[in-house]
Amino acid sequence: MTLAVRYTAARTLDTAVVDAPAPGPGEVELAPAYVGICGTDLHIFHGDMDARVAAPAVLGHEMSGRIVRVGPEVEGWQPGDAVTVMPLRWDGSCPACRAGHQHICQHLDFIGIDSPGAMQQRWRVPASTLIPLPDALPLDRAALVEPTAVAVHDVGRARVREGEKVVVVGGGPVGVLIALVAQAAGAEVRVVELSAHRRSLAQELGLVTWDPAGVDVPGLVGEWTGEAGADVAFEVSGAAGGVDTAVEVLGVRGRLCLVAIHSRPREVNLHRFFWRELTLVGARLYERSDFEKAVALVAEGTIPAERLISRVVPLTQAPTAFEALEGGGEVMKILVDCTTDIEGARA
Amino acid sequence: MTLAVRYTAARTLDTAVVDAPAPGPGEVELAPAYVGICGTDLHIFHGDMDARVAAPAVLGHEMSGRIVRVGPEVEGWQPGDAVTVMPLRWDGSCPACRAGHQHICQHLDFIGIDSPGAMQQRWRVPASTLIPLPDALPLDRAALVEPTAVAVHDVGRARVREGEKVVVVGGGPVGVLIALVAQAAGAEVRVVELSAHRRSLAQELGLVTWDPAGVDVPGLVGEWTGEAGADVAFEVSGAAGGVDTAVEVLGVRGRLCLVAIHSRPREVNLHRFFWRELTLVGARLYERSDFEKAVALVAEGTIPAERLISRVVPLTQAPTAFEALEGGGEVMKILVDCTTDIEGARA
Repeated sequence: MTLAVRYTAARTLDTAVVDAPAPGPGEVELAPAYVGICGTDLHIFHGDMDARVAAPAVLGHEMSGRIVRVGPEVEGWQPGDAVTVMPLRWDGSCPACRAGHQHICQHLDFIGIDSPGAMQQRWRVPASTLIPLPDALPLDRAALVEPTAVAVHDVGRARVREGEKVVVVGGGPVGVLIALVAQAAGAEVRVVELSAHRRSLAQELGLVTWDPAGVDVPGLVGEWTGEAGADVAFEVSGAAGGVDTAVEVLGVRGRLCLVAIHSRPREVNLHRFFWRELTLVGARLYERSDFEKAVALVAEGTIPAERLISRVVPLTQAPTAFEALEGGGEVMKILVDCTTDIEGARA
Repeated sequence: MTLAVRYTAARTLDTAVVDAPAPGPGEVELAPAYVGICGTDLHIFHGDMDARVAAPAVLGHEMSGRIVRVGPEVEGWQPGDAVTVMPLRWDGSCPACRAGHQHICQHLDFIGIDSPGAMQQRWRVPASTLIPLPDALPLDRAALVEPTAVAVHDVGRARVREGEKVVVVGGGPVGVLIALVAQAAGAEVRVVELSAHRRSLAQELGLVTWDPAGVDVPGLVGEWTGEAGADVAFEVSGAAGGVDTAVEVLGVRGRLCLVAIHSRPREVNLHRFFWRELTLVGARLYERSDFEKAVALVAEGTIPAERLISRVVPLTQAPTAFEALEGGGEVMKILVDCTTDIEGARA
């Protein structure tokens, strides 16, 4: 048995004791330690993804933990190993998989959305999803590996190079992580963010921020770049105005990496794409190499994960934490602690 | 003195005898032989570019001809040499030039738009713009080198590789040239075009065409690619629906090369860019290497230039030809013959 945080209907989470069957062939059973609450989890909570998510659904895909049991036909893993999970399962046979892009498999199972997630005390996953964690890395910090892998993938898709000037539009957790990863790649970075609280969090991490409501962002980019324009922009805001800003700040042959989900078509200044020979690059999820690099960046402290964690709540308080986030609370990342011992819930 | 075709006001061209001063340092004087009428020339004729074009303006930038006189400080060129012109003059000092992208110089002089063009009997240009033509290449065919260079640049920007499946949306002269250049690069190509006449012209050149009003283009692409989607799409239509089609037909990691000028922002399905990790690449004009490759493709017959020439009119008939094109005449490419001997107009 395992205690799990479940999405049951729009704006409704519960905690319930559910079955925890033994791991099957190729599977392992994990004891999740910390699980981050992500923007996608909030979308699910809001009921926006009911067409995709089969309630009751156990949420959570940003996690760290340890192996408890190892199923048949699993080699190279032992109980006690500290791990995180790359929460993707692909069919291996669709055209995307055959072309080597398994992370955008046409029948992708995103674990934690399409199948049960990590916000529980015991979690069965395929051993193929495991990523080893260094023993010295505290497990709370390790819960930031998954969003860091997103940022690593985005920065890689944009091909950020040393010395380049980069504008990140949107300073939430993913935007800040992209800014830090781009900086680690040798870029100079500016973060554009409307929320004063998020700007101050980003500034505390050493990032330079601009308030698009208060300053002329393209004008500042012009001054900053000697009127050349930025080399790279990341659209992480999800807003129509964010797209406009990202296009406008780019110089000749600039690259716009599209990270945010725009569920509606957006008006885009295609003339600028033609005139300046800009490139727009879509980026989705991550590949194993991104995850491995993210582990290294978090472990070595390049990503100061501990400073991105706003709060840690016990598993039983997760529903309340979601409700608090509903108001757009002044937080960067909230972790759910799955290790709290809860009467009668352990297997 | 030289007889020239001049844009004087919206929908008004004249022919007039104008001065032909001797070539200055670094310049040559050419006798244009054939000059193609391009979509941009028609935009100017319609009055759409009056903010940029200073009337009276001599039009024409798709040309072939021979050197008549060589100015001081010009080396390596002789009277009689057959040439075409890459009609670009850049400042060499702006950020785009310093980054090696002179063809998108921030202060680009596009000769034939921003300064006098080739539709005249004598034309002075910087020797730096000259591209040599092989003696065996007939000059009428050589007038197709410039639009072919556009297509070479576009296919290069999209990085079309052997065996890839390519959809060209828009089957006018540039679309057809892109299709032919992509085919020469080893791609399989489909051309999407509304006009029955243009489809039949493309078919005569051996291209497979689809009528988007009559067939389900994304459905056909699905069948054609085993539901993988196309590797590359070119948007050459300039229409909002063309953008939608080009986005919709692409498979995972597909590349959309934006060739057409969209003077208004367009609604773009950015979610698809995210979901399939698509890339949008703007392409403008050409570089010298594109021109040199275009000369080779036209000279060796890979581009069957003679079959793209719908009609040749003498210089004095150019105004009438523009008026005929106004109605969207059923033509691919009209050339203006500048060599017709006209009483009193020769220098």
